[in-house]
Amino acid sequence: MTQQKNNRQIILIKRPIGKPDENCFKLVTSETPEPANGQVLLQTQYISVDPYMRGRMNDKKSYVPPFKLDEPMNGGVIGKVIESKTDGLKKGDFVVGNLGWQDFSVAGEKEVRKINPDIAPISASLGALGMTGLTAYFGLLDIGKPKHGETVVVSGAAGAVGTLVGQIAKIKGCRVVGIAGSDKKVKYLVDELGFDAAINYKSVPDLNEALSEACPKGVDVYFDNVGGEISDAVIALINNHARIPLCGQISLYNEERIPIGPRIQPALLTNSALMQGFIVRNYEDRFGEGIVQLAQWLKENKLKYAEEIIEGLENAPKAFLGLFAGENLGKQLVKVSPDPD
Amino acid sequence: MTQQKNNRQIILIKRPIGKPDENCFKLVTSETPEPANGQVLLQTQYISVDPYMRGRMNDKKSYVPPFKLDEPMNGGVIGKVIESKTDGLKKGDFVVGNLGWQDFSVAGEKEVRKINPDIAPISASLGALGMTGLTAYFGLLDIGKPKHGETVVVSGAAGAVGTLVGQIAKIKGCRVVGIAGSDKKVKYLVDELGFDAAINYKSVPDLNEALSEACPKGVDVYFDNVGGEISDAVIALINNHARIPLCGQISLYNEERIPIGPRIQPALLTNSALMQGFIVRNYEDRFGEGIVQLAQWLKENKLKYAEEIIEGLENAPKAFLGLFAGENLGKQLVKVSPDPD
Repeated sequence: MTQQKNNRQIILIKRPIGKPDENCFKLVTSETPEPANGQVLLQTQYISVDPYMRGRMNDKKSYVPPFKLDEPMNGGVIGKVIESKTDGLKKGDFVVGNLGWQDFSVAGEKEVRKINPDIAPISASLGALGMTGLTAYFGLLDIGKPKHGETVVVSGAAGAVGTLVGQIAKIKGCRVVGIAGSDKKVKYLVDELGFDAAINYKSVPDLNEALSEACPKGVDVYFDNVGGEISDAVIALINNHARIPLCGQISLYNEERIPIGPRIQPALLTNSALMQGFIVRNYEDRFGEGIVQLAQWLKENKLKYAEEIIEGLENAPKAFLGLFAGENLGKQLVKVSPDPD
Repeated sequence: MTQQKNNRQIILIKRPIGKPDENCFKLVTSETPEPANGQVLLQTQYISVDPYMRGRMNDKKSYVPPFKLDEPMNGGVIGKVIESKTDGLKKGDFVVGNLGWQDFSVAGEKEVRKINPDIAPISASLGALGMTGLTAYFGLLDIGKPKHGETVVVSGAAGAVGTLVGQIAKIKGCRVVGIAGSDKKVKYLVDELGFDAAINYKSVPDLNEALSEACPKGVDVYFDNVGGEISDAVIALINNHARIPLCGQISLYNEERIPIGPRIQPALLTNSALMQGFIVRNYEDRFGEGIVQLAQWLKENKLKYAEEIIEGLENAPKAFLGLFAGENLGKQLVKVSPDPD
């Protein structure tokens, strides 16, 4: 069979300085790859866009290697097996893995994980039942260790991770306060997800005051997705023995200079507080435990998840850039193929 | 017996703004207290002056309550029993406890701990075998968790806690780098205490460069006594999964405004690093374990300690203020009574 040049790809053509824009990306077309023995050919269904990818656009050592210039962007992707040269996967199976932003990929059997579409829609494997859910689960429970009756504050509360963190904290019997960037998000957190309070940091006259009101007993756990001045305000309210899982710092990712702010060590010191950076991969050997629990909560309707879906591979850069404008409520996905058969 | 007005006391008469000075303190004379049943009358032998006391001079909630105006300063003190109305303590015993800066104190039997003078000179109960040693022991081992071959950096390295932290890290098989403020201190750390390297931050042309050279494999544990720009330089070198016990922030204690600096969350996040504030009292139920181990290391000559002793109760403020000028090498004590019989 002659290879066809019908594999559209989003490649990185420029490393951004400060805020990235569409000029960093380019849509190209290449040959559809052919699977070798032990590999599957996958047709992309959904692409996950995530804030941490901003760091990978820099040519700088971090916890994940930088994206390479002139190569496809990559990250969490759901694919459908359209050809299999493996024993374990067959045509029609859905899998999730770290794959390129393109129409077609090949992957070894061990490089992807088969999705059970009976538990939840397949897209959940990039969200509540994927890295997003596991990030919320381990960051909150393993580092934050919320106890019944404690106050948990989450920033980026209406984002993919934040929505789940708040709900898990509610399951654990905590008072949950979310910080988000629009009235629509705030309403969603309280009305739909059962947060005890939520604050629109963009419209509130005084964030410190609003937080003090929402957290009359101080803050025991602060799950931080955003950093910057929002975090300054929360850290000012921490209680003795507070725990601060550091999940993201999206407010700082596009800073061109080293961000400056009030030193936080005095607050951590005088409160015997803990701050711990993490990435979900630190918990790789416990992913099974996390998925089982998250699936159980979904089934029991204790956990809901929101998705924003943009259609079309060509719109993946737009979806990604939207994260930094706070456009998404819940998980931002890009749908690439038509609805699965 | 008629009470005699011969109990000299150092009282706090003014809360400092910024850097404290001798005008904050006043020497007064009051009546020598009389012990009630269950109490002992103690003659002060040694007074411990510690950086954390600066925080207690402010009228602000912290992990220890503020000093009260017009009352004696207080803290770690060694006293000799000169009269006992208890079953457990007898005349001539030495005890350590939280007592006033004064010639004579009364204390309940449970408020003080009897010292065994056969293990080490009694003054060690305010240093290596007291809160200072326990601070180093639990902060380094419980939070820092140094592993053989790792690099441990300690700031305020020539101070009471720092000298012990570095030596315990050496016992654990680490590469130990100290940061201190004079050539004399740096020489002492390397030549006398066996640190692998030490840096005089006041004279080194470029602290970042000096640290990079001293820590070719990066920093796994940073035991922070000082905060500020020294800490900025160390945090820039932390490795993946680094641990940062926050013990003190002496460089910031006298700041009148909220100290500003580069935000550290990005470094903690990208390195999955932990920062944990603590006070030694968090480990109260394990003090026994710590004292036994510290005494064992002293006996085996694996642990040395340095003391600076200023004579005379009237010089206690001077000794305390000297801490902020970095005058002390090791533990700063004030000797109040003549040598014990």
